[in-house]
Amino acid sequence: MSRRHSENILFGGVEAGGTNFNCVMGYGDGDIIARRTIPTTTPENTLAQVVDFFKEKSIEYGPVQALGIAHFGPIDINKASRSYGKILLTVKPGWSYFDIVGYFSNIFSVPVAFQSDVNGAAIGERYFGGAKENDNFVYMTVGTGIGGGAFVNGHLVNNLQHPEIGHMLVPHDVVQDSFPGSCPVHGDCLEGLASGSAIKSRWGSPGESLPENSAVWELEAHYLAILCVNLCYCYAPEKIILGGGVMGQKQIFPILHRKFLELMHGYMTTLNEVSIKDFIVPTRLAGEAATKGSLILAHQGYFSETAAALSPRCNKTHRFP
Amino acid sequence: MSRRHSENILFGGVEAGGTNFNCVMGYGDGDIIARRTIPTTTPENTLAQVVDFFKEKSIEYGPVQALGIAHFGPIDINKASRSYGKILLTVKPGWSYFDIVGYFSNIFSVPVAFQSDVNGAAIGERYFGGAKENDNFVYMTVGTGIGGGAFVNGHLVNNLQHPEIGHMLVPHDVVQDSFPGSCPVHGDCLEGLASGSAIKSRWGSPGESLPENSAVWELEAHYLAILCVNLCYCYAPEKIILGGGVMGQKQIFPILHRKFLELMHGYMTTLNEVSIKDFIVPTRLAGEAATKGSLILAHQGYFSETAAALSPRCNKTHRFP
Repeated sequence: MSRRHSENILFGGVEAGGTNFNCVMGYGDGDIIARRTIPTTTPENTLAQVVDFFKEKSIEYGPVQALGIAHFGPIDINKASRSYGKILLTVKPGWSYFDIVGYFSNIFSVPVAFQSDVNGAAIGERYFGGAKENDNFVYMTVGTGIGGGAFVNGHLVNNLQHPEIGHMLVPHDVVQDSFPGSCPVHGDCLEGLASGSAIKSRWGSPGESLPENSAVWELEAHYLAILCVNLCYCYAPEKIILGGGVMGQKQIFPILHRKFLELMHGYMTTLNEVSIKDFIVPTRLAGEAATKGSLILAHQGYFSETAAALSPRCNKTHRFP
Repeated sequence: MSRRHSENILFGGVEAGGTNFNCVMGYGDGDIIARRTIPTTTPENTLAQVVDFFKEKSIEYGPVQALGIAHFGPIDINKASRSYGKILLTVKPGWSYFDIVGYFSNIFSVPVAFQSDVNGAAIGERYFGGAKENDNFVYMTVGTGIGGGAFVNGHLVNNLQHPEIGHMLVPHDVVQDSFPGSCPVHGDCLEGLASGSAIKSRWGSPGESLPENSAVWELEAHYLAILCVNLCYCYAPEKIILGGGVMGQKQIFPILHRKFLELMHGYMTTLNEVSIKDFIVPTRLAGEAATKGSLILAHQGYFSETAAALSPRCNKTHRFP
């Protein structure tokens, strides 16, 4: 390593997504020194490959001192719960109730921090991305599914359960848009109407093959504008950051900005056609938000457990963000 | 006074509503020693009567050391803004851009804390009501309008602007409910569909004259269930407290509980037909949430300004909740 790090402590991070597990080894300043992408198949198969990655890289770089896992939901993040660290009921075959934290804790004797994937990405945006200056912001990913993480007063919105912003119930004008929605749970919630899966089902092709079809992006921007309006009404954020595969279609942003201002009817008085461009913005982390966030999770897990070991009364001083 | 208070400092509080200004004099522990209700007419007329109340009661009890104003919105709560302390554009004749904080500061040379009425009520619930044990909860008032205040990680969700949860855009099935909505800004947002005004417009009579019409409360509970679902997805709260005139119709609660569980599809795994009764609850403060909250606001304004005067670096230690 030519670069020096403020703390010479090595961490492991995993963005555990429904399609891939993106594994990284790196530092609490977000510097990544090794990475590997592993397809999401069965827990046994995928997780064994994750373990192999960290073991192999440990020979080269030394052992990690903590792991941070930013995992697809729903997951149990309530440390007082009997199912803490597990995946909850999911449509993904084989993954329901799998004990992720237990699995890694048994193999690596290090702290394992566990969080939803979108909360991990929100942490990445807060520390390294578009929200470094923002105590109050929302990060949304619009990909195969839709999810979000929010910071309020400098701290992550998180409680006994993680938020599920992507499943927000939104207006659906069936005359204008007869698509019934693709969410297996809610049908026409936001995810059911505006996710990448919804685009593919409604239009018969994935979004990346439809860039010239303006009707696709008008409708997509319409639903995302409703989302952003509701985020403003709920969180009064300083910024909304949008990532995920669908948001790679940059033609959405100007339409979204226009529709958002129309729907807001002047509620946020500081927003106009110019300032909106700095308010609803694309991620600048190019798919790295959750992996970098997972290193922060590991960093926090490490210092939280170290502090707790030093003093039982000290374990609230290094709270999660 | 027979009762002793931990700090013998007298505060003034105002719940400034669209129908009435409820003025109180009391202590930071929520004890109210004098009160008066003043109809909301013009700013000049109403505010002069508010001033009279505090001047009269000061002769009897001594002067207040700070004022807390929990005001109907939209208001400017951003201290860095040129219009801080003012009402923003409102449909209420004569009130747009009136400088509330300036008015009271000029007359009483004491700190004047300024907050939205629903945030004031949420503060009241946090300190004296159903959320004393809850760092994460939402208070909603469903009356002539709909508004809400939320606490996340023990602090009020509040930023350069206050939230406007009541104007959330929600599903509206025009086949089932052809009422176009009564919100002058959005039409069929939540407030436009489920406020007391909406009930009156849709059914031709105010809610209090329709207690036996089950269709009214089925539909009302339907919209409130959508609201509660979206609140869960956004805030992952420990509790949702509902107040305001419409919620006086207690027959709403069992229907709301049932519809909420149906819509949630098991997302909050701890909730069932029994535990839901402690999750979505009526206010226990019987219309006192915002007046008691305004005393807390005054208390915080007093200590915030006192701390700031003692040390410029100290003024962040007594932050607003």
